[in-house]
Amino acid sequence: MQLATATWPEVEAYLATCTGIVVPIGSTEQHGPNGLIGTDALCAEAVARGVGEATGALVAPTLSIGMAEHHMAFPGTITLKPSTLVALIGDVVGALAEHGFDRFLFVNGHGGNIPSLNAAFYEVHAARRATRPEAPGLRMRIANWFLGPAVGRLAAELYGDNEGSHATPSEVSLTQHLLPEHIKPATFSGPAPRGSFHDRHDVRRRFPDGRMGSDPSLSRPEHGARLLDTAVGEIAEAWHRLLAED
Amino acid sequence: MQLATATWPEVEAYLATCTGIVVPIGSTEQHGPNGLIGTDALCAEAVARGVGEATGALVAPTLSIGMAEHHMAFPGTITLKPSTLVALIGDVVGALAEHGFDRFLFVNGHGGNIPSLNAAFYEVHAARRATRPEAPGLRMRIANWFLGPAVGRLAAELYGDNEGSHATPSEVSLTQHLLPEHIKPATFSGPAPRGSFHDRHDVRRRFPDGRMGSDPSLSRPEHGARLLDTAVGEIAEAWHRLLAED
Amino acid sequence: MQLATATWPEVEAYLATCTGIVVPIGSTEQHGPNGLIGTDALCAEAVARGVGEATGALVAPTLSIGMAEHHMAFPGTITLKPSTLVALIGDVVGALAEHGFDRFLFVNGHGGNIPSLNAAFYEVHAARRATRPEAPGLRMRIANWFLGPAVGRLAAELYGDNEGSHATPSEVSLTQHLLPEHIKPATFSGPAPRGSFHDRHDVRRRFPDGRMGSDPSLSRPEHGARLLDTAVGEIAEAWHRLLAED
Amino acid sequence: MQLATATWPEVEAYLATCTGIVVPIGSTEQHGPNGLIGTDALCAEAVARGVGEATGALVAPTLSIGMAEHHMAFPGTITLKPSTLVALIGDVVGALAEHGFDRFLFVNGHGGNIPSLNAAFYEVHAARRATRPEAPGLRMRIANWFLGPAVGRLAAELYGDNEGSHATPSEVSLTQHLLPEHIKPATFSGPAPRGSFHDRHDVRRRFPDGRMGSDPSLSRPEHGARLLDTAVGEIAEAWHRLLAED
Amino acid sequence: MQLATATWPEVEAYLATCTGIVVPIGSTEQHGPNGLIGTDALCAEAVARGVGEATGALVAPTLSIGMAEHHMAFPGTITLKPSTLVALIGDVVGALAEHGFDRFLFVNGHGGNIPSLNAAFYEVHAARRATRPEAPGLRMRIANWFLGPAVGRLAAELYGDNEGSHATPSEVSLTQHLLPEHIKPATFSGPAPRGSFHDRHDVRRRFPDGRMGSDPSLSRPEHGARLLDTAVGEIAEAWHRLLAED
Amino acid sequence: MQLATATWPEVEAYLATCTGIVVPIGSTEQHGPNGLIGTDALCAEAVARGVGEATGALVAPTLSIGMAEHHMAFPGTITLKPSTLVALIGDVVGALAEHGFDRFLFVNGHGGNIPSLNAAFYEVHAARRATRPEAPGLRMRIANWFLGPAVGRLAAELYGDNEGSHATPSEVSLTQHLLPEHIKPATFSGPAPRGSFHDRHDVRRRFPDGRMGSDPSLSRPEHGARLLDTAVGEIAEAWHRLLAED
Repeated sequence: MQLATATWPEVEAYLATCTGIVVPIGSTEQHGPNGLIGTDALCAEAVARGVGEATGALVAPTLSIGMAEHHMAFPGTITLKPSTLVALIGDVVGALAEHGFDRFLFVNGHGGNIPSLNAAFYEVHAARRATRPEAPGLRMRIANWFLGPAVGRLAAELYGDNEGSHATPSEVSLTQHLLPEHIKPATFSGPAPRGSFHDRHDVRRRFPDGRMGSDPSLSRPEHGARLLDTAVGEIAEAWHRLLAED
Repeated sequence: MQLATATWPEVEAYLATCTGIVVPIGSTEQHGPNGLIGTDALCAEAVARGVGEATGALVAPTLSIGMAEHHMAFPGTITLKPSTLVALIGDVVGALAEHGFDRFLFVNGHGGNIPSLNAAFYEVHAARRATRPEAPGLRMRIANWFLGPAVGRLAAELYGDNEGSHATPSEVSLTQHLLPEHIKPATFSGPAPRGSFHDRHDVRRRFPDGRMGSDPSLSRPEHGARLLDTAVGEIAEAWHRLLAED
Repeated sequence: MQLATATWPEVEAYLATCTGIVVPIGSTEQHGPNGLIGTDALCAEAVARGVGEATGALVAPTLSIGMAEHHMAFPGTITLKPSTLVALIGDVVGALAEHGFDRFLFVNGHGGNIPSLNAAFYEVHAARRATRPEAPGLRMRIANWFLGPAVGRLAAELYGDNEGSHATPSEVSLTQHLLPEHIKPATFSGPAPRGSFHDRHDVRRRFPDGRMGSDPSLSRPEHGARLLDTAVGEIAEAWHRLLAED
Repeated sequence: MQLATATWPEVEAYLATCTGIVVPIGSTEQHGPNGLIGTDALCAEAVARGVGEATGALVAPTLSIGMAEHHMAFPGTITLKPSTLVALIGDVVGALAEHGFDRFLFVNGHGGNIPSLNAAFYEVHAARRATRPEAPGLRMRIANWFLGPAVGRLAAELYGDNEGSHATPSEVSLTQHLLPEHIKPATFSGPAPRGSFHDRHDVRRRFPDGRMGSDPSLSRPEHGARLLDTAVGEIAEAWHRLLAED
Repeated sequence: MQLATATWPEVEAYLATCTGIVVPIGSTEQHGPNGLIGTDALCAEAVARGVGEATGALVAPTLSIGMAEHHMAFPGTITLKPSTLVALIGDVVGALAEHGFDRFLFVNGHGGNIPSLNAAFYEVHAARRATRPEAPGLRMRIANWFLGPAVGRLAAELYGDNEGSHATPSEVSLTQHLLPEHIKPATFSGPAPRGSFHDRHDVRRRFPDGRMGSDPSLSRPEHGARLLDTAVGEIAEAWHRLLAED
Repeated sequence: MQLATATWPEVEAYLATCTGIVVPIGSTEQHGPNGLIGTDALCAEAVARGVGEATGALVAPTLSIGMAEHHMAFPGTITLKPSTLVALIGDVVGALAEHGFDRFLFVNGHGGNIPSLNAAFYEVHAARRATRPEAPGLRMRIANWFLGPAVGRLAAELYGDNEGSHATPSEVSLTQHLLPEHIKPATFSGPAPRGSFHDRHDVRRRFPDGRMGSDPSLSRPEHGARLLDTAVGEIAEAWHRLLAED
């Protein structure tokens, strides 16, 4: 069930049997010359909805804009400051907790969100303890779909070293599967530079077309379908583990 | 063109001819016994995308979660604190402005967002003047699709006094048109109480099923199609006016 | 009774019979070539004190500085960032609520404060629910003296289309009544431009002398006396309604 | 000249000859059984306006609400959190600085404001350096009217040890001079306890009627007139020194 | 006992007999041509540890970086914004209070920290009252080692007028005693300018080598030993008074 | 060279040849029944100073208090909220950058600091771009001494599976080497529970004595000496790489 298409009495009924919720979070940022700017949000949303269908988990609306400061030298990227993203995540968790939700699985599509997610979790824990010391604890976990071991094995099988770390053929394949009408031609060839980076200008200088070690010309929609199934399977297990935790 | 399904070179090309952007903003909150929790976000997104198709405007991802503190006594509502929403809007505008966007049309689906939108605009103006006094000014406007005069006339024609002010038949019709598979039965009859309110408990006490003066049992998908067309027409004109402003 | 000229035992006695309070809020901003920079604060204070005398309501000190970013291209304007004004209002309400006040009528003299007032109210509600879920709710209302229907009718009778929307003859008349020693000559003639605006530079460009659609050369102190009486009457009724709310 | 009763062209003219401004700041807090809650704001305002008349200095609107957390166990006290007061002061200075004011004399009526004033000054300095390293520096000073040496000598002459540190006969005399219609009877006798304190409950416990070491039954309006003259004289000198600083 | 070299069971045992703690706070800022940048932190730490040894008080880690905006025109100075320092102090107090500490003695080595310390104390008090009105109060005091009367007498005896107000021979002597291997030659002679100042550039302009009215060429390690003993003695008494407060 | 024991002219001279700086950051938190509460700060400081000696790098004062919310159910732990730690790190970097430092190596002793460090870096980058778009970029890296490959190999050789993840024999050995007078007896035997956790109460419930999968009874001072040398060697290389980056 998606929260957006449920009514409040349906949520009330859900809460009587389950106090967990899945929250997709992505980013709106450049994904190389042929990757969609919404890639990270689209992928996280698709995986989260798949998990919802597979397990009956309630799925919150996608947080589509993340922390993408390092990609800001490419037009179209939108970033939240980490402090804004932390506040946003904290408010979402806080509001849901007031309804009785206490187990949160964030299905994340963007590495740059991980620090803010972790910071937000501890802001939430600290605020809860300071103001209501006796309130029961909350449980929040991150499931990075692109870092799951099974997804990693499949990506390695499909692309080997050409997977890279940003604008990867895996994520581009997944969006090609989701939105075949938006498959863009690959006008480049070969892998992109690799390595670490600092601020936005450093990123643009080192990775002129936005790809990082990846060759998304290898992307295929049918790969995307397999990657989606694999990710949904892994994260459905994470969901069951979170619910089963003592 | 939607930003989420564009590439960065496509945005770069768009910016060469137009520095305006449409940003849909909604809410995730109770909409009465048969209205969808995502109503405000779904409607704003549909109208904004319609405007994008009609005018060629670039459409940003939907900000799906708004300021809904007053609906928090109904399960499933998510709210941002006004300060968080102000920061979120400010970051989105700020990031887009760094790419050269300077005209922003927020297509809004929720009255509760209006103060935060206005506050955010002046935070943006103030910060820009304080730190970069010579930078060119930004232009931000709100288009509340549900308050347009033509939409108002059509709603009055369809529902008269039963339109009400929250969980209206108009917005429910629009979501029925968008998502016919999610039409929920109306298990109530007649209009709901009217009047003003204070905090969340006051809202729940005065409006026990979440409707405010409305009878959404009158909603029909075919009404939604007409309302959508009307709203898109009105807001497309607002877009052209914003671009044409000297 | 004004809070500023009361003692704490007098406030303690007042609270035993009434938990409501009137809070005037204005702005310190340009009001055209002959309007006083303190117009919005002076008017709100006079109306609020009149309501206090007419009804016995306790009147808090005037919040004299508001959100006036858009007038900052005129010397002498002082503005608070919306976030600062929201914090200020929230602290004032919070402090008074700790003493037992639970009904707040903000007598407002400046349209630019409305978003911050609304945002502040929901910040207060949200913080109260998050930290003390069982505390009784607070009730906060805005009474914009210049938007009351009877005031509007009188202004239309006196000035017709020349009322305009900023540096209006109504508010200038009211300050002329209050401070006859500060009546300034009108060195202009005829109404000013009309229309909407964006940031401070845009305001200065479109409205070079600071007036917006108004002709304050029509102002007269005797008009101000009538406007004040009318506003006090309307807002005294709003005060009684707020106290009488179930 | 008071800013509130000036027009923007008058401020523009003032700035051509002087870039200094006087800002009164007080507090709204209990002042013992017969002292006015507005004492600190009323006194600061009267002194500041006196300085304005004596020197031609422009006088801003009074910041009437300060940091009074420690008096919050007495009804009617309003406090700002230090962070809010710092933001408020910073915004006021920032706005005025954008018009060209660069020398600020805060005439302060409340010891509890001093840390926030100092913190605000360094926030302003730090923000200015971080964002506009080459902008000229600002000069901000605090003049605590009740701590001036001549005022101290006069208070000692009038009250000796009965001056105390809060709800003093000096400040009560000053308000009696300003507002003879609000002179309240002294229903207590003898001095109050002395000593330091911690939070609001500690203050109420140690100083049950709100006086700290003071006997305001000694207050007389004619004392207030002398104290006002003395304070205006001292602070007028501070104003001239600030303007004359190289 | 130092907190840093204790185990948690040792702290648990300490709390069974004493709920007070000593917190050293300093600064990292220029101290003239031969003073160490860490002077304020080194001195506060040494005095606090001395108090801990003399009294059995638990000593927290030193907060080494303070509010030093005014010294920022000298390389190597690090400053926190006042708001950051307030948050830091508030978090430290808040965390310790959650363990049951309720009496805090801040041994301070830097005048510039005093406003932030005071602001932080009231932020802590206000937050505690707003969220947990019935929680017992906290008691926080500042002990400025360099302002103690006995220290002042000794400094006057040793250096007379050459003590000055920054980069003083007293504090330099204390660091010479603590770190004889870091005694730096004095390549200047005679006292430095005196007077007040505004922002960092003003400080650099008025005090070109960083000394303010001081002649630290008079510093001697053996003076430092005497100053340390004196300060420890004075502050040990303050500690006992804080514990003994009713 | 340590910043704390340098003078400002020495820092000025350093900056003429090197614009990099090492910043140690730790935590003040429980480290099991026999580990020191200051372990993470002590270790980071020792490693950072070792790197300074080995390479000539300037070493800033240690940030001794980190993000330790999850350990707060053990007495003596001090935590900063993530937002406070982010502000603290941002201020430190910002101040040093104003002097010309542009390469920052944070030697970190605590995993819980990593999200805040990353968030702070992007806050710094974002603020710099928003206010001074043309200013040169900053380069910040984290070196977690306990995660270096050579340290990991040595820990595995010394302790195998008994290293665990918190209150590890490695870090305890390092503090035993640094502070032999503070070696505490190990009154437990065998490894502790393993696994993940949520908030502070969950940590205390799962790990009753504070150890996580570790057996610090295996710690020896001589191990600490070897671990320190190894860590210094690894991080000295990271320092050289950071300086050599194009």
